[in-house]
Amino acid sequence: MPHYKLTYFNLRGRAEISRYVFAYSGKKYEDHRIEAADWPKIKPTIPFGKVPVLEVDGVIIHQSLAIARYLARETGLAGQTPVEQALADAIVDTIDDFMVLFPWAEKNQDVRTQAFNDILTNKAPELLKDLDAFLGDKNWLVGKSVTWADFYWDVCKHFLLLQPGSRKDQRQSCRPPVQTGK
Amino acid sequence: MPHYKLTYFNLRGRAEISRYVFAYSGKKYEDHRIEAADWPKIKPTIPFGKVPVLEVDGVIIHQSLAIARYLARETGLAGQTPVEQALADAIVDTIDDFMVLFPWAEKNQDVRTQAFNDILTNKAPELLKDLDAFLGDKNWLVGKSVTWADFYWDVCKHFLLLQPGSRKDQRQSCRPPVQTGK
Ligand SMILES: [Mg+2]
Ligand SMILES: [Mg+2]
Repeated sequence: MPHYKLTYFNLRGRAEISRYVFAYSGKKYEDHRIEAADWPKIKPTIPFGKVPVLEVDGVIIHQSLAIARYLARETGLAGQTPVEQALADAIVDTIDDFMVLFPWAEKNQDVRTQAFNDILTNKAPELLKDLDAFLGDKNWLVGKSVTWADFYWDVCKHFLLLQPGSRKDQRQSCRPPVQTGK
Repeated sequence: MPHYKLTYFNLRGRAEISRYVFAYSGKKYEDHRIEAADWPKIKPTIPFGKVPVLEVDGVIIHQSLAIARYLARETGLAGQTPVEQALADAIVDTIDDFMVLFPWAEKNQDVRTQAFNDILTNKAPELLKDLDAFLGDKNWLVGKSVTWADFYWDVCKHFLLLQPGSRKDQRQSCRPPVQTGK
């Protein structure tokens, strides 16, 4: 088994989807969490200068979703057929398009709160409606078993439920496609 | 062989990467180009309401990069090993992160020009430097043969070279990893 080293800050953030895949599959890995103070020293040593990165026996893979998709494929969580894998990829990118709307780097608290509220009020309901229609009567977003798309929705939902701006009706409609257990 | 129908506007845009994969692999497909005037009628019939979409024997796959990755895998253009596939995915997402910086929907021409120029001046050089370092002495971005990551860079480069704001030294450093031939 290769040695996996996942490097990110001590946050859920863009590494959490890969941590879900590791946790669910039981694969061992090094969960390397760096301090913000050490980042300026580490950044120039990383291809493309961003975390997370995953080292697999010395090869460095960058981009959070490329990492998570690789791990999902290695552990049977990417979808059971090529078309299911494409649909899981499509759902992940749809959720990601939503998550990147938020101005994460905005320092001005008023501007930030206003933007977050706008997105939660004007964009979240459409995402929830579309995901709900796509889920339909199924237990999982794609195919007949859990995929990393369900995990990514859980990452997104976890973030939404923490927002003071999230409306009660939105919280209620956050029905979880990720079920318990394995 | 499945019937492939790719639906998008009559533009390069977010469908062009899939058209490259079809063209290079020689796979037949229906290149369905819709008129902007027909979009309001078509939008509600499409899951998640955005194009491109690819129909594969009746299943609709959304999200441009999910579609292109699926086609790249089907045609041997996604990378030769799981790690190479992850690296190709990572390069594609890196280029995409850059492409989505541009305010494509901005209607005010002055605001638009200013934003495009800012990105071309302040963000493009870093992307080019990082891609160049990643490419190194190789002929292709990932592994020993062409992948869809090379194609996506060509899509991006094509766009960059059309920009009046692109600087001469940037144009010179746009060395093409996509070579001629098959
Ligand atoms: Mg995207
Ligand atoms: Mg991304």
